[in-house]
Amino acid sequence: MVRYKAIIAYDGTNFHGFQRQPNGRTVQEEIEKTLQKMNNGQAVQLFGSGRTDAGVHALGQVIHFDFPQKRPEERMRFALDTQTPEDIAVRSVEIVPEDFHARYDVHEKTYYFKVQIQKPRSPFRRFYAAYYPYPLDLEKVKQALPDLLGTHDFTSFCATGSSIEDKVRTIYQADMEVNAEGSEITFIFRGNGFLYKMIRILVGTLLKIGNGRLAADSIPEIIAKKDRNAAGPTAHPEGLYLAEVKYKKTK
Amino acid sequence: MVRYKAIIAYDGTNFHGFQRQPNGRTVQEEIEKTLQKMNNGQAVQLFGSGRTDAGVHALGQVIHFDFPQKRPEERMRFALDTQTPEDIAVRSVEIVPEDFHARYDVHEKTYYFKVQIQKPRSPFRRFYAAYYPYPLDLEKVKQALPDLLGTHDFTSFCATGSSIEDKVRTIYQADMEVNAEGSEITFIFRGNGFLYKMIRILVGTLLKIGNGRLAADSIPEIIAKKDRNAAGPTAHPEGLYLAEVKYKKTK
Repeated sequence: MVRYKAIIAYDGTNFHGFQRQPNGRTVQEEIEKTLQKMNNGQAVQLFGSGRTDAGVHALGQVIHFDFPQKRPEERMRFALDTQTPEDIAVRSVEIVPEDFHARYDVHEKTYYFKVQIQKPRSPFRRFYAAYYPYPLDLEKVKQALPDLLGTHDFTSFCATGSSIEDKVRTIYQADMEVNAEGSEITFIFRGNGFLYKMIRILVGTLLKIGNGRLAADSIPEIIAKKDRNAAGPTAHPEGLYLAEVKYKKTK
Repeated sequence: MVRYKAIIAYDGTNFHGFQRQPNGRTVQEEIEKTLQKMNNGQAVQLFGSGRTDAGVHALGQVIHFDFPQKRPEERMRFALDTQTPEDIAVRSVEIVPEDFHARYDVHEKTYYFKVQIQKPRSPFRRFYAAYYPYPLDLEKVKQALPDLLGTHDFTSFCATGSSIEDKVRTIYQADMEVNAEGSEITFIFRGNGFLYKMIRILVGTLLKIGNGRLAADSIPEIIAKKDRNAAGPTAHPEGLYLAEVKYKKTK
């Protein structure tokens, strides 16, 4: 068996998320179906760096799988890219050591979250950015972002019902950019891992700060409360992009 | 009756074009349904600056309609924008003289045509740009563009079967831009009018020039032939955007 690592992009609009499930089309299922065809009908199991929810996009999701034959990397990439549906792109394929694991070896992840702030809402962005039609003071948002950096217990920013016990994570980067037209903002979050719906709750909270319904310096207090109710609402999934997954250098 | 002019944008992906037709959802039908609701169930007829085909988008299509009440322009815009489906945006509404006509008074139109040229194809652009996976010498395309300027009989660039007799049109602008990432090119065509599928045939021809299968100086010869077979293929509709419609200054 040869282990392959692949970097894939997908438009999450028509998927019920990344992970295979009994009802609903998923990214994992589509790629596994393609791999099975390439493997003469034998099932191939695929592992992703983590799940993405329905409607959430990926620019750089990472997967791995084992395949019986050693094939040139670009030929494998081309076969996978052309045989998977049009809403999945296979950006690169690499042969990796047998102990590489797309999920367990994750070193850091980067997410983008895009928010459309123009009026009227552009019909072209309705599946690719969340929409915020209310007044927004971007200076307040910028002021709040550095308070997210570092190692914290992010219980307040985790969807209730999550089974994960350890909610301590480290955020290395928390930035916001405005596009040239001023029509859309992009949040950039880079960290060693993120809890369930954490990015979407972070964005919902930051927008509430920008709207003046929470103080610009309220992040440390929200973190300290370890209470989901202290944070803002969960922003819509269509704004979220898994941008990049990095692995330890030896991997 | 008060005549209103509106500038609208739409994502053409899920429309069978602009113009009302017996089968299939159209932009005209959706806006007329909304206007009828706003007019207590009485039908309101809408006129557009021209048709767009299935899958073709608009950033600045112009329409006009007559409505019994005089309403503040921004209130009319907001009502239309919020009551039409999410793939239509009403950008502006203006009360105009009763003799304004969205179609007959057109002075000039601007179209964009977007072509994705990166590998692999981005899943996010599959409905919003045509895809060209073959080698492309953009210098040759740039060299050919000025030959389109001016007043010509564009019979060679008109879909066969068109019932329009006079195929003389004037092109004021024919440009091409590459985005910062080098992943997509945008053609810009501005003229006093365009024939049926003319922009798509122009782009199909220019891409054939860029690919080296037609000479960079072949445009004058193709125009002179007045033969659709002399030009290149018709590019896919998803790359086409009606960007702007201008009217005589008095309108």
